[in-house]
Amino acid sequence: MDITSHTHHISQQYNIELDDIKTHLAEMGGMAERQVNDAITAMIEVDLEKAEQVVHGDRKVNSMEVSIDEECVRILAKRQPAAGDLRLVIAVTKAITDLERIGDEASKIARQAIALSRDGAAPRGYVEMRHIGNHVSRMLHEALDAFARLDLDVALKVVQTDRTVDMEYSTAMREMITYMIEDPRSITRVLNIMWSLRALERIGDHARNIAQYVVYLVMGEDVRHGSIEEIEEQLGQDQEDGE
Amino acid sequence: MDITSHTHHISQQYNIELDDIKTHLAEMGGMAERQVNDAITAMIEVDLEKAEQVVHGDRKVNSMEVSIDEECVRILAKRQPAAGDLRLVIAVTKAITDLERIGDEASKIARQAIALSRDGAAPRGYVEMRHIGNHVSRMLHEALDAFARLDLDVALKVVQTDRTVDMEYSTAMREMITYMIEDPRSITRVLNIMWSLRALERIGDHARNIAQYVVYLVMGEDVRHGSIEEIEEQLGQDQEDGE
Repeated sequence: MDITSHTHHISQQYNIELDDIKTHLAEMGGMAERQVNDAITAMIEVDLEKAEQVVHGDRKVNSMEVSIDEECVRILAKRQPAAGDLRLVIAVTKAITDLERIGDEASKIARQAIALSRDGAAPRGYVEMRHIGNHVSRMLHEALDAFARLDLDVALKVVQTDRTVDMEYSTAMREMITYMIEDPRSITRVLNIMWSLRALERIGDHARNIAQYVVYLVMGEDVRHGSIEEIEEQLGQDQEDGE
Repeated sequence: MDITSHTHHISQQYNIELDDIKTHLAEMGGMAERQVNDAITAMIEVDLEKAEQVVHGDRKVNSMEVSIDEECVRILAKRQPAAGDLRLVIAVTKAITDLERIGDEASKIARQAIALSRDGAAPRGYVEMRHIGNHVSRMLHEALDAFARLDLDVALKVVQTDRTVDMEYSTAMREMITYMIEDPRSITRVLNIMWSLRALERIGDHARNIAQYVVYLVMGEDVRHGSIEEIEEQLGQDQEDGE
């Protein structure tokens, strides 16, 4: 079953428009990924210049959201897509909202990095930042990859990884609280790390959302609020049905 | 100029469907509002039972998002709406995403209330919670009201209030940090207040988003990333054009 390409239309122009929104989504995704990775690097290396680049770069992510959204609305108005094409257009409008918010979170991390470059480095928390940052960055990359190739298995893996990230985040937060109690003079700087960890955790949530749109696209069902067990069950049934 | 009613269609059923999504959005909005108000009350009064009701009630908000989203997709597929109707359907799909996230934030506040009912009340921060909570709760109410009546003036007021809330939030956060430094034993409990304040601030952001969709609906322009000055300018021009 070929699920990687949408229905082809007699109108060549319509095909181009549908391909375009997928391409532009991938571009916006690449930009959001770079923002996240640069923000993490700026934080860990207390790199003021990189942090300021990220804050400045958020405008580009925002303007891509607006322009892709306009493209989608134009397709809805002009082409009146049905079935799979309609699902694609809707999934793209949803995914760009998550990418825009990922950009916002990257920008928040960069602002914390700027604060730390001013107040002095935090005494702890960089190991946790790097570790959770790597996880979340990979989740985002794989969610975008799953969207581009409509790959259910990769999408499911992203949803599962989000659970791990949530647990690691809780552990890291408890450690940060312990540091603050041990050394109250470090409270402000440890808080900078805590806000950044929370931003990473939210980026993970948005990556999971994008992975869930892939499931929606492929299976035509809404799994946003379903548990992973339900998704796995659905996948199991789908695979059985398909074979 | 009557902007409060959408175009009427020959198909009576289509009119009913468009009215339905507006009604359901208002219902979901009312539910999100109650969740926010109950979460704030649970926090301030350290009311465990109310907090647990809010956490439990979030499912209902989530399932309303899914069902309204399905209604919108069905209208897009079946009615292929144009112009103002298309904008309405798209604005509703966006607004329900914000309402769902408002529900999530209310649920986070309720979880902090549960933690406080376990660890003992925080030493400070309730005045700030109540003050910012009142502001944000009113913003949400007015944003929903502006959506129901497509009232540009009310929508603009909401956007402006969000600036005030952001400033009050920053001030409150600085105060909380001071409390933690003064009394490190209270760190965990003050953090519960800080997470709740942050959740309130995000609820304010979502209410502002909803207000901006009203501007989009009425004016047909994307103002999500525009500054308030641009919106005011657009409003000024629009009013001049209309008169």
